[in-house]
Amino acid sequence: MRVLEDLEDFYYLMHPLRVFILVSKDGRGRVNFMTVAWAIPASSDPPMVAAAISKECYTLKALRETGEFVLAIPTVEQLGKVWKAGTLSGFKVDKSGIFKTRKALKVKVPIIEECIANIECKVRRMIDCGETMLVIGDVIAASYDEKAYDEKLRVQLYKAKILSHLQGKLFLLYEAKTYKPT
Amino acid sequence: MRVLEDLEDFYYLMHPLRVFILVSKDGRGRVNFMTVAWAIPASSDPPMVAAAISKECYTLKALRETGEFVLAIPTVEQLGKVWKAGTLSGFKVDKSGIFKTRKALKVKVPIIEECIANIECKVRRMIDCGETMLVIGDVIAASYDEKAYDEKLRVQLYKAKILSHLQGKLFLLYEAKTYKPT
Repeated sequence: MRVLEDLEDFYYLMHPLRVFILVSKDGRGRVNFMTVAWAIPASSDPPMVAAAISKECYTLKALRETGEFVLAIPTVEQLGKVWKAGTLSGFKVDKSGIFKTRKALKVKVPIIEECIANIECKVRRMIDCGETMLVIGDVIAASYDEKAYDEKLRVQLYKAKILSHLQGKLFLLYEAKTYKPT
Repeated sequence: MRVLEDLEDFYYLMHPLRVFILVSKDGRGRVNFMTVAWAIPASSDPPMVAAAISKECYTLKALRETGEFVLAIPTVEQLGKVWKAGTLSGFKVDKSGIFKTRKALKVKVPIIEECIANIECKVRRMIDCGETMLVIGDVIAASYDEKAYDEKLRVQLYKAKILSHLQGKLFLLYEAKTYKPT
Protein backbone atom coordinates (compact mmCIF):
# COMPACT_ATOMS: atom_id res chain seq x y z
CA MET A 1 0.00 0.00 0.00
CA ARG A 2 1.27 3.43 -0.96
CA VAL A 3 0.23 6.57 0.92
CA LEU A 4 -1.59 9.12 -1.26
CA GLU A 5 0.58 12.25 -1.19
CA ASP A 6 -1.87 14.85 -2.44
CA LEU A 7 -5.17 14.26 -0.67
CA GLU A 8 -7.06 16.43 -3.17
CA ASP A 9 -6.49 13.58 -5.65
CA PHE A 10 -8.39 11.06 -3.50
CA TYR A 11 -11.40 11.10 -5.84
CA TYR A 12 -9.37 9.48 -8.61
CA LEU A 13 -9.27 6.40 -6.38
CA MET A 14 -13.11 6.34 -6.40
CA HIS A 15 -13.45 6.72 -10.16
CA PRO A 16 -14.75 5.45 -12.58
CA LEU A 17 -18.20 6.70 -11.60
CA ARG A 18 -21.42 6.73 -13.58
CA VAL A 19 -22.11 9.71 -15.82
CA PHE A 20 -25.38 11.67 -15.69
CA ILE A 21 -26.56 14.83 -17.41
CA LEU A 22 -28.06 17.44 -15.11
CA VAL A 23 -30.59 19.51 -17.04
CA SER A 24 -31.62 22.87 -15.60
CA LYS A 25 -33.34 26.06 -16.71
CA ASP A 26 -32.39 29.54 -15.58
CA GLY A 27 -34.76 32.35 -14.61
CA ARG A 28 -34.88 33.64 -18.18
CA GLY A 29 -35.93 30.21 -19.48
CA ARG A 30 -32.63 29.11 -21.00
CA VAL A 31 -31.95 25.39 -20.72
CA ASN A 32 -28.51 24.24 -19.58
CA PHE A 33 -26.83 20.82 -19.56
CA MET A 34 -24.03 19.76 -17.25
CA THR A 35 -22.24 16.42 -17.00
CA VAL A 36 -22.00 15.05 -13.46
CA ALA A 37 -20.32 11.90 -12.19
CA TRP A 38 -20.77 12.71 -8.51
CA ALA A 39 -24.47 11.81 -8.22
CA ILE A 40 -26.32 9.06 -6.34
CA PRO A 41 -29.78 8.13 -5.15
CA ALA A 42 -30.04 9.51 -1.59
CA SER A 43 -33.22 7.69 -0.56
CA SER A 44 -35.84 5.42 -2.08
CA ASP A 45 -38.72 6.32 0.27
CA PRO A 46 -39.25 9.20 -0.18
CA PRO A 47 -37.36 9.18 -3.50
CA MET A 48 -34.42 11.58 -3.38
CA VAL A 49 -31.13 12.15 -5.23
CA ALA A 50 -27.89 13.88 -4.25
CA ALA A 51 -25.42 15.48 -6.69
CA ALA A 52 -22.23 17.39 -5.91
CA ILE A 53 -21.75 20.24 -8.37
CA SER A 54 -19.06 22.91 -8.52
CA LYS A 55 -19.89 26.28 -6.97
CA GLU A 56 -18.50 27.85 -10.13
CA CYS A 57 -20.99 26.32 -12.52
CA TYR A 58 -23.90 27.95 -14.28
CA THR A 59 -26.17 25.10 -13.20
CA LEU A 60 -26.01 26.31 -9.60
CA LYS A 61 -27.26 29.74 -10.65
CA ALA A 62 -30.09 28.11 -12.61
CA LEU A 63 -31.05 25.84 -9.70
CA ARG A 64 -31.20 28.85 -7.39
CA GLU A 65 -33.43 30.68 -9.84
CA THR A 66 -35.92 27.94 -10.68
CA GLY A 67 -35.39 25.09 -8.20
CA GLU A 68 -35.92 22.22 -10.62
CA PHE A 69 -33.69 19.79 -12.51
CA VAL A 70 -33.62 16.54 -14.44
CA LEU A 71 -31.00 13.81 -14.10
CA ALA A 72 -30.73 12.08 -17.46
CA ILE A 73 -28.83 8.90 -18.34
CA PRO A 74 -26.77 9.06 -21.54
CA THR A 75 -25.07 6.24 -23.44
CA VAL A 76 -21.86 6.00 -25.45
CA GLU A 77 -23.80 7.20 -28.50
CA GLN A 78 -23.94 10.64 -26.86
CA LEU A 79 -20.30 10.67 -25.72
CA GLY A 80 -19.37 13.73 -27.79
CA LYS A 81 -22.33 15.65 -26.37
CA VAL A 82 -21.57 14.45 -22.84
CA TRP A 83 -18.04 15.83 -23.22
CA LYS A 84 -19.31 19.17 -24.50
CA ALA A 85 -21.83 19.49 -21.68
CA GLY A 86 -19.08 18.70 -19.19
CA THR A 87 -16.36 21.02 -20.49
CA LEU A 88 -18.14 24.12 -21.81
CA SER A 89 -19.42 26.66 -19.27
CA GLY A 90 -22.99 27.92 -19.35
CA PHE A 91 -21.59 31.33 -18.31
CA LYS A 92 -19.75 31.57 -21.65
CA VAL A 93 -21.75 29.41 -24.05
CA ASP A 94 -25.42 28.72 -24.66
CA LYS A 95 -25.46 24.93 -24.28
CA SER A 96 -29.21 24.60 -24.79
CA GLY A 97 -28.82 23.04 -28.24
CA ILE A 98 -26.50 20.18 -27.32
CA PHE A 99 -29.20 17.57 -26.71
CA LYS A 100 -32.66 17.04 -28.22
CA THR A 101 -35.27 17.69 -25.56
CA ARG A 102 -38.97 17.24 -24.97
CA LYS A 103 -41.47 18.31 -22.34
CA ALA A 104 -41.09 16.67 -18.94
CA LEU A 105 -43.93 15.04 -17.00
CA LYS A 106 -43.87 17.24 -13.90
CA VAL A 107 -41.12 19.88 -14.05
CA LYS A 108 -40.64 22.90 -16.34
CA VAL A 109 -37.10 21.78 -17.16
CA PRO A 110 -37.17 19.58 -20.28
CA ILE A 111 -36.04 15.94 -20.45
CA ILE A 112 -33.45 14.62 -22.93
CA GLU A 113 -35.03 12.61 -25.71
CA GLU A 114 -31.79 10.76 -26.54
CA CYS A 115 -31.25 9.53 -22.98
CA ILE A 116 -32.51 6.15 -21.76
CA ALA A 117 -34.00 7.58 -18.56
CA ASN A 118 -34.92 10.96 -17.11
CA ILE A 119 -35.44 11.56 -13.42
CA GLU A 120 -37.37 14.76 -12.65
CA CYS A 121 -36.48 16.54 -9.42
CA LYS A 122 -37.20 19.57 -7.27
CA VAL A 123 -34.37 20.99 -5.17
CA ARG A 124 -35.01 20.21 -1.51
CA ARG A 125 -31.85 21.75 -0.09
CA MET A 126 -28.26 22.55 -0.91
CA ILE A 127 -25.39 21.76 1.40
CA ASP A 128 -22.13 23.67 1.30
CA CYS A 129 -19.35 21.08 0.74
CA GLY A 130 -16.05 22.87 0.17
CA GLU A 131 -15.71 23.57 -3.52
CA THR A 132 -19.13 22.10 -4.30
CA MET A 133 -22.73 22.42 -3.36
CA LEU A 134 -24.33 19.10 -2.61
CA VAL A 135 -27.76 19.41 -4.19
CA ILE A 136 -30.45 17.22 -2.64
CA GLY A 137 -33.54 16.80 -4.77
CA ASP A 138 -36.94 15.20 -4.37
CA VAL A 139 -37.74 12.88 -7.26
CA ILE A 140 -41.24 13.79 -8.43
CA ALA A 141 -41.44 11.85 -11.71
CA ALA A 142 -39.34 9.56 -13.91
CA SER A 143 -39.55 8.01 -17.36
CA TYR A 144 -37.41 5.51 -19.24
CA ASP A 145 -36.91 3.80 -22.57
CA GLU A 146 -38.53 0.37 -22.19
CA LYS A 147 -36.08 -1.06 -24.76
CA ALA A 148 -33.13 -0.10 -22.55
CA TYR A 149 -34.45 -1.68 -19.31
CA ASP A 150 -35.97 -5.08 -18.64
CA GLU A 151 -39.21 -5.66 -16.73
CA LYS A 152 -37.32 -5.46 -13.41
CA LEU A 153 -35.78 -2.10 -14.42
CA ARG A 154 -32.35 -3.62 -14.96
CA VAL A 155 -30.46 -1.81 -17.70
CA GLN A 156 -29.87 -3.99 -20.77
CA LEU A 157 -26.18 -3.47 -21.36
CA TYR A 158 -26.05 -5.03 -24.81
CA LYS A 159 -28.61 -2.46 -25.94
CA ALA A 160 -27.78 0.58 -23.79
CA LYS A 161 -24.06 1.19 -23.35
CA ILE A 162 -24.09 3.46 -20.33
CA LEU A 163 -21.05 5.59 -19.55
CA SER A 164 -18.75 5.94 -16.58
CA HIS A 165 -16.02 8.55 -16.22
CA LEU A 166 -12.50 7.41 -15.43
CA GLN A 167 -10.39 10.58 -15.68
CA GLY A 168 -9.92 13.47 -18.13
CA LYS A 169 -11.08 12.36 -21.57
CA LEU A 170 -11.30 8.68 -20.64
CA PHE A 171 -14.68 6.96 -20.30
CA LEU A 172 -15.59 3.31 -19.67
CA LEU A 173 -18.38 0.88 -20.46
CA TYR A 174 -19.59 -2.19 -18.60
CA GLU A 175 -19.21 -5.77 -19.70
CA ALA A 176 -22.62 -7.16 -20.70
CA LYS A 177 -22.22 -10.00 -18.19
CA THR A 178 -23.42 -10.26 -14.62
CA TYR A 179 -21.58 -11.76 -11.64
CA LYS A 180 -23.19 -13.33 -8.59
CA PRO A 181 -21.71 -13.96 -5.16
CA THR A 182 -21.42 -17.66 -4.30
CA MET B 1 -40.56 6.62 -23.11
CA ARG B 2 -42.53 4.86 -20.40
CA VAL B 3 -43.59 6.59 -17.20
CA LEU B 4 -42.18 4.99 -14.05
CA GLU B 5 -45.20 3.86 -12.03
CA ASP B 6 -43.66 3.33 -8.62
CA LEU B 7 -41.37 6.29 -7.94
CA GLU B 8 -39.63 4.44 -5.09
CA ASP B 9 -38.05 2.29 -7.81
CA PHE B 10 -36.34 5.28 -9.48
CA TYR B 11 -32.92 4.27 -8.15
CA TYR B 12 -32.92 1.15 -10.32
CA LEU B 13 -32.71 3.52 -13.29
CA MET B 14 -29.46 4.96 -11.83
CA HIS B 15 -27.84 1.60 -11.17
CA PRO B 16 -25.31 0.02 -11.71
CA LEU B 17 -23.29 2.08 -9.25
CA ARG B 18 -19.82 1.47 -7.85
CA VAL B 19 -19.49 -0.66 -4.76
CA PHE B 20 -17.54 0.45 -1.67
CA ILE B 21 -17.08 -1.05 1.77
CA LEU B 22 -17.71 1.32 4.65
CA VAL B 23 -15.62 0.27 7.64
CA SER B 24 -16.60 1.60 11.07
CA LYS B 25 -15.91 0.85 14.73
CA ASP B 26 -18.47 1.12 17.50
CA GLY B 27 -17.93 2.60 20.97
CA ARG B 28 -16.91 -0.81 22.36
CA GLY B 29 -14.24 -1.17 19.69
CA ARG B 30 -15.97 -3.70 17.44
CA VAL B 31 -15.25 -3.27 13.75
CA ASN B 32 -18.14 -3.39 11.28
CA PHE B 33 -18.27 -3.62 7.49
CA MET B 34 -21.12 -2.43 5.30
CA THR B 35 -21.46 -2.50 1.52
CA VAL B 36 -22.53 0.83 0.00
CA ALA B 37 -23.23 1.72 -3.62
CA TRP B 38 -24.62 5.18 -2.85
CA ALA B 39 -21.30 6.95 -2.24
CA ILE B 40 -19.44 9.70 -4.12
CA PRO B 41 -16.67 12.22 -3.66
CA ALA B 42 -18.37 15.42 -2.46
CA SER B 43 -15.43 17.79 -2.92
CA SER B 44 -11.77 17.64 -3.90
CA ASP B 45 -10.63 20.79 -2.06
CA PRO B 46 -11.11 20.25 0.81
CA PRO B 47 -11.37 16.48 0.21
CA MET B 48 -14.80 15.20 1.25
CA VAL B 49 -17.03 12.20 0.57
CA ALA B 50 -20.79 11.66 0.83
CA ALA B 51 -22.50 8.31 1.45
CA ALA B 52 -26.20 7.57 1.91
CA ILE B 53 -26.72 4.80 4.45
CA SER B 54 -29.92 3.33 5.84
CA LYS B 55 -31.10 4.68 9.18
CA GLU B 56 -31.62 1.06 10.24
CA CYS B 57 -28.00 -0.01 9.92
CA TYR B 58 -25.48 -0.72 12.65
CA THR B 59 -22.93 1.47 10.87
CA LEU B 60 -24.95 4.57 11.74
CA LYS B 61 -24.79 3.69 15.45
CA ALA B 62 -21.02 3.15 15.15
CA LEU B 63 -20.52 6.45 13.30
CA ARG B 64 -22.43 8.27 16.03
CA GLU B 65 -20.30 6.65 18.70
CA THR B 66 -16.85 7.15 17.19
CA GLY B 67 -17.19 9.57 14.24
CA GLU B 68 -14.70 7.87 11.93
CA PHE B 69 -14.92 5.57 8.91
CA VAL B 70 -12.98 4.16 6.00
CA LEU B 71 -14.28 3.80 2.44
CA ALA B 72 -12.52 0.81 0.90
CA ILE B 73 -12.55 -0.33 -2.73
CA PRO B 74 -13.09 -4.06 -3.27
CA THR B 75 -12.69 -6.13 -6.44
CA VAL B 76 -14.49 -9.16 -7.82
CA GLU B 77 -12.13 -11.38 -5.81
CA GLN B 78 -13.96 -10.21 -2.68
CA LEU B 79 -17.46 -10.55 -4.14
CA GLY B 80 -18.58 -13.17 -1.60
CA LYS B 81 -17.39 -10.97 1.26
CA VAL B 82 -18.97 -7.87 -0.30
CA TRP B 83 -22.28 -9.72 -0.39
CA LYS B 84 -21.99 -10.82 3.25
CA ALA B 85 -21.11 -7.30 4.39
CA GLY B 86 -24.10 -5.96 2.46
CA THR B 87 -26.73 -8.46 3.58
CA LEU B 88 -25.90 -9.37 7.20
CA SER B 89 -26.80 -6.85 9.92
CA GLY B 90 -24.25 -5.70 12.49
CA PHE B 91 -27.11 -5.69 15.02
CA LYS B 92 -27.43 -9.47 14.66
CA VAL B 93 -23.98 -10.67 13.58
CA ASP B 94 -20.40 -9.76 14.42
CA LYS B 95 -19.11 -8.94 10.92
CA SER B 96 -15.63 -7.94 12.13
CA GLY B 97 -14.01 -11.09 10.70
CA ILE B 98 -15.24 -10.79 7.10
CA PHE B 99 -12.22 -8.89 5.76
CA LYS B 100 -8.54 -8.91 6.71
CA THR B 101 -7.64 -5.55 8.21
CA ARG B 102 -4.61 -3.55 9.22
CA LYS B 103 -3.94 -0.33 11.07
CA ALA B 104 -5.00 2.85 9.26
CA LEU B 105 -2.76 5.89 8.81
CA LYS B 106 -4.87 8.46 10.67
CA VAL B 107 -8.12 6.96 12.00
CA LYS B 108 -8.76 4.34 14.69
CA VAL B 109 -10.98 2.37 12.30
CA PRO B 110 -8.85 -0.22 10.44
CA ILE B 111 -8.36 -0.37 6.67
CA ILE B 112 -9.05 -3.46 4.55
CA GLU B 113 -5.87 -5.20 3.46
CA GLU B 114 -7.54 -6.97 0.51
CA CYS B 115 -8.93 -3.75 -0.98
CA ILE B 116 -7.09 -1.76 -3.65
CA ALA B 117 -7.63 1.58 -1.91
CA ASN B 118 -8.71 2.85 1.50
CA ILE B 119 -9.97 6.38 2.10
CA GLU B 120 -9.87 7.43 5.76
CA CYS B 121 -12.57 9.87 6.89
CA LYS B 122 -13.95 11.74 9.86
CA VAL B 123 -17.69 12.43 9.95
CA ARG B 124 -18.30 16.13 9.32
CA ARG B 125 -22.08 16.06 9.43
CA MET B 126 -25.08 13.85 8.78
CA ILE B 127 -28.10 14.97 6.82
CA ASP B 128 -31.50 13.41 7.29
CA CYS B 129 -32.64 12.15 3.85
CA GLY B 130 -35.85 10.17 4.24
CA GLU B 131 -34.95 6.55 4.90
CA THR B 132 -31.21 7.30 4.93
CA MET B 133 -28.68 9.51 6.61
CA LEU B 134 -26.38 11.20 4.14
CA VAL B 135 -23.01 11.01 5.86
CA ILE B 136 -20.54 13.71 4.83
CA GLY B 137 -16.96 12.98 5.77
CA ASP B 138 -13.67 14.83 5.61
CA VAL B 139 -10.97 12.74 3.93
CA ILE B 140 -7.93 12.88 6.19
CA ALA B 141 -5.72 10.18 4.64
CA ALA B 142 -5.75 7.63 1.82
CA SER B 143 -3.64 4.73 0.63
CA TYR B 144 -3.74 2.48 -2.41
CA ASP B 145 -2.20 -0.56 -4.05
CA GLU B 146 0.32 0.79 -6.57
CA LYS B 147 -0.19 -2.33 -8.73
CA ALA B 148 -3.89 -1.52 -9.11
CA TYR B 149 -3.48 2.14 -10.18
CA ASP B 150 -1.16 3.73 -12.73
CA GLU B 151 1.02 6.78 -12.07
CA LYS B 152 -1.95 9.07 -12.79
CA LEU B 153 -4.11 7.16 -10.27
CA ARG B 154 -6.20 5.55 -12.99
CA VAL B 155 -7.38 2.11 -11.96
CA GLN B 156 -5.84 -0.68 -14.05
CA LEU B 157 -8.90 -2.67 -15.00
CA TYR B 158 -7.07 -5.71 -16.34
CA LYS B 159 -5.44 -6.07 -12.90
CA ALA B 160 -8.15 -4.77 -10.55
CA LYS B 161 -11.67 -5.85 -11.47
CA ILE B 162 -13.69 -3.33 -9.50
CA LEU B 163 -17.35 -4.00 -8.78
CA SER B 164 -20.58 -2.20 -9.51
CA HIS B 165 -23.99 -3.20 -8.20
CA LEU B 166 -26.83 -3.69 -10.67
CA GLN B 167 -29.68 -5.08 -8.58
CA GLY B 168 -30.21 -7.84 -6.00
CA LYS B 169 -27.47 -10.45 -6.40
CA LEU B 170 -26.24 -9.07 -9.74
CA PHE B 171 -22.90 -7.28 -10.00
CA LEU B 172 -21.01 -5.92 -13.02
CA LEU B 173 -17.44 -5.32 -14.11
CA TYR B 174 -16.01 -2.78 -16.53
CA GLU B 175 -14.53 -3.54 -19.94
CA ALA B 176 -10.74 -2.98 -19.81
CA LYS B 177 -11.00 -0.51 -22.70
CA THR B 178 -11.31 3.26 -22.63
CA TYR B 179 -13.45 5.47 -24.87
CA LYS B 180 -12.70 9.06 -25.82
CA PRO B 181 -15.05 11.74 -27.13
CA THR B 182 -14.22 12.84 -30.68
